[in-house]
Amino acid sequence: MNGADVLCDVLLANDVNICFANPGTSEMHFVAALDRRPEMRCVLGLFEGVVTGAADGYARMTNRPALTLLHTGPGLANGLANLHNARRARVPMINVVGDHASYHLPLDAPLTADIECLAAPMSNWVRRIEGPDDVARATQAAIHASLSPPGIATLILPADAAWGEARPPASAVIDRPAPPATKGEAIRSAAEAIRKARGRAALLVRGTAALADSLKIAGQISAALNVRLFSEVQVAHMQRGVGRVAPTRIPYPIDAALEVLADIDVLVLVGAPEPVAFFAYPGKPGRLVHKGCQVLTLAAHGEDLKRALEELRDELGIKGSQAVPQAKTVPDEGRPSGALTEDAVAVIVAQKLPDNAIVCDEGITSARRFFSLSEQSAPHDFMMNTGGAIGIGIPLSIGAAIACPDRKVLNLQADGSGMYTVQGLWTQARENLDIITIVFANRTYAVLHGEMRNVGVQTIGENARRMLDLDNPLLDWVSMAKGLGVEAARAHTCEEFTGLLDHALSRHGPFLIEAVI
Amino acid sequence: MNGADVLCDVLLANDVNICFANPGTSEMHFVAALDRRPEMRCVLGLFEGVVTGAADGYARMTNRPALTLLHTGPGLANGLANLHNARRARVPMINVVGDHASYHLPLDAPLTADIECLAAPMSNWVRRIEGPDDVARATQAAIHASLSPPGIATLILPADAAWGEARPPASAVIDRPAPPATKGEAIRSAAEAIRKARGRAALLVRGTAALADSLKIAGQISAALNVRLFSEVQVAHMQRGVGRVAPTRIPYPIDAALEVLADIDVLVLVGAPEPVAFFAYPGKPGRLVHKGCQVLTLAAHGEDLKRALEELRDELGIKGSQAVPQAKTVPDEGRPSGALTEDAVAVIVAQKLPDNAIVCDEGITSARRFFSLSEQSAPHDFMMNTGGAIGIGIPLSIGAAIACPDRKVLNLQADGSGMYTVQGLWTQARENLDIITIVFANRTYAVLHGEMRNVGVQTIGENARRMLDLDNPLLDWVSMAKGLGVEAARAHTCEEFTGLLDHALSRHGPFLIEAVI
Repeated sequence: MNGADVLCDVLLANDVNICFANPGTSEMHFVAALDRRPEMRCVLGLFEGVVTGAADGYARMTNRPALTLLHTGPGLANGLANLHNARRARVPMINVVGDHASYHLPLDAPLTADIECLAAPMSNWVRRIEGPDDVARATQAAIHASLSPPGIATLILPADAAWGEARPPASAVIDRPAPPATKGEAIRSAAEAIRKARGRAALLVRGTAALADSLKIAGQISAALNVRLFSEVQVAHMQRGVGRVAPTRIPYPIDAALEVLADIDVLVLVGAPEPVAFFAYPGKPGRLVHKGCQVLTLAAHGEDLKRALEELRDELGIKGSQAVPQAKTVPDEGRPSGALTEDAVAVIVAQKLPDNAIVCDEGITSARRFFSLSEQSAPHDFMMNTGGAIGIGIPLSIGAAIACPDRKVLNLQADGSGMYTVQGLWTQARENLDIITIVFANRTYAVLHGEMRNVGVQTIGENARRMLDLDNPLLDWVSMAKGLGVEAARAHTCEEFTGLLDHALSRHGPFLIEAVI
Repeated sequence: MNGADVLCDVLLANDVNICFANPGTSEMHFVAALDRRPEMRCVLGLFEGVVTGAADGYARMTNRPALTLLHTGPGLANGLANLHNARRARVPMINVVGDHASYHLPLDAPLTADIECLAAPMSNWVRRIEGPDDVARATQAAIHASLSPPGIATLILPADAAWGEARPPASAVIDRPAPPATKGEAIRSAAEAIRKARGRAALLVRGTAALADSLKIAGQISAALNVRLFSEVQVAHMQRGVGRVAPTRIPYPIDAALEVLADIDVLVLVGAPEPVAFFAYPGKPGRLVHKGCQVLTLAAHGEDLKRALEELRDELGIKGSQAVPQAKTVPDEGRPSGALTEDAVAVIVAQKLPDNAIVCDEGITSARRFFSLSEQSAPHDFMMNTGGAIGIGIPLSIGAAIACPDRKVLNLQADGSGMYTVQGLWTQARENLDIITIVFANRTYAVLHGEMRNVGVQTIGENARRMLDLDNPLLDWVSMAKGLGVEAARAHTCEEFTGLLDHALSRHGPFLIEAVI
């Protein structure tokens, strides 16, 4: 067998069996090897940003690494923006980047590029396979790295390592890395600080601490000792909806974020870094807690966060039977009607969300209201753009739908961001994924209009308008979706939108609604 | 004035007056500064690969740098693939990459990334602006670097350097770098080697050596002394057509390339590197000349290549009146008819090419025949993908059309590659650019099917097919173009294609023809 065969076998032996791919010539031996292994599911993206974003969505829903297959430096480069988001979401992922045969590199052929340098900023682990006999060892190391958070592992596969004769490993299955233990000292310090803060303490949860079981424990601590409960601005993954404990998301606008954290004297981090401003603004601070606030880490990402919360609860003397405030059903404020607005879309989606749905939110400014309403929706999983590199919504929904084929996926998609990886709609059609894409067609980079006002520009001129507005020509999402094989329709009114959403929810397969707001 | 204002003014003072852009929050002060300077033309791309590819097309046609405006690390990352192509085309370009305020970086906010590391592999020059008072000096250095081939200059603009109060420079205009002088020794060595080779010598031209005036001189040397005349596989820019000297392009398939160079004992490089195989294949060499071939550099890229050729001609004792073999009008082999094929498209386009057109060729396997025919077309400029990072055709045509608004631009576009930067069609519509996009809709990555055969796979299975074919669902380019604001139609027969091409040639503005082959 050749190196490519060994690579496939080691991956499959360790349950890595989804490959999001856009291969090229230097990966042909690997493609041929994949062809000999139908148990590996290969999903083609027509652009590498689709590939890496889909792998992120898969990893967020399963906490398992997917494989991506990328073609040399430029193929990796095309996938970097969504790798950046994946790195910020701290998911497991294995990127196999094909490269020239090792002896071909000194010739500086046209596709030659410094792959290590390109990979480093968006990877937690990078390694080049040294030859056919290094394939097994390097692949095992990559799988191990992907499972040792943070887990973006990039493995460079020279063509001659793929095509050369290679020995299979004596044992293909690796020992899974154990999560690092949470320190008792951290539990006791957090408990002591919370007690002393007397109602001016907060927990900030992310990762597995934002899943339903952990949120319940955090909610018990919150209810018993009047501890505030926060999530970060950019939610990687949260379980949410009726019957679940709902943390307050720290607002994106810096003034609002400062206000919400103004009376917090003790902030306890549970799998989260300290919250900071997304961008800097002249004269405003970058840290969001006040200067006297004590910031402690209960447990870091990668540790068993649920157990850490349980230990904190016990240390604080709170019973496991402590009642928690639970989100309630969406109040019947009536069905919105008339001309469609972004808030009306949010209300209708929150009201109609089916049980156990998965929501991807790249609505940027347009979907803001959805999050607050969704604590009262049917129980669901919620994911956002974590790194600010736009163009993740469509790919993320692909990965979620492949991870959870029996669940409905709704992608709330801003139009400007959606254009970055619009090619992903084709993969949704090809794989017949059960995804409803709702495009907020406001025909502008609305967030940037807000930021122009933030820098003091009140009147926008021609040059700025031409860089911020998407209105000439208008993007026709229905035609684009049709061109990519996805059924689609446009709504101008709440009634039209409700009808289309009902239709999309009643069927299986991808559907796109262009919500003109 | 602030740093952003100084940046604009220094650029404009040095005739950098086109800005291909996709800005974000950290660039808002720069956008506001651009808004105060209507003499800077700002062209929005809905994805950064469009932005950098368009700047490349502009630079190839003008030999002047365009500005690109990119948003932080991920925005740069999205533009890297076409920066890679631009670097391989060795064009001048200035990328302004906005970054967080310098004091915000240590907080590791979500969008933070190592921009220097991302930029280095695809840039020839990288510099971070140190503060408001460094803006003028750094911008002047960037312009200078872009004009000192190879010229991909990346300038990182921290937000606080943009918004801080800055001094304008005493003198905004820089001294242009002089091209390095060609060495007399190189001329004499080349002449001597050519004489000794007795009909087994060749010139390999690229860059300005492949423009009409230089080609004529190369053609005189070729005619007088039976010297073969070659261009590289991936043509950055060539002037071509009736009345011009037409070099032989070194073939892409490695066996054909080896054969065409087999009897060359002396290869003289004129602005070109030594030719090498695009990819390595087991058991085949990477260098394309035979082992005993003497490879000399007459003049390197950046030198005055026309003058170097003149000096070589004089050194060889060839008169300026030496006749050259000139390409002739397309022979009337009759208009193709019936079902459309890729070769029929090539023939019809070659026959109907209008005078002084610009042809962008990202047809990959489908447009192969066009190049050989086009030496007999009306005089035109020809450009290709230089670095093998697919997705350049649509952006390249944008840059060419903006550089040369009075000329017709034809983009021969493979479907798989076109999908990478399909968003560029919107910019074509927005700017009402005179571009005809011809999509070779073969619904597959045809080049990869060939490469699979090259690695010995005769029968393709399900996994490989799902990574190589674009057939389920079919891409509907007419609907996609409509969705992006570009008029489009589909041709299944030669008659339909001819009719659509005539229509597109008779009007101004973007038009897309989906040629189903």
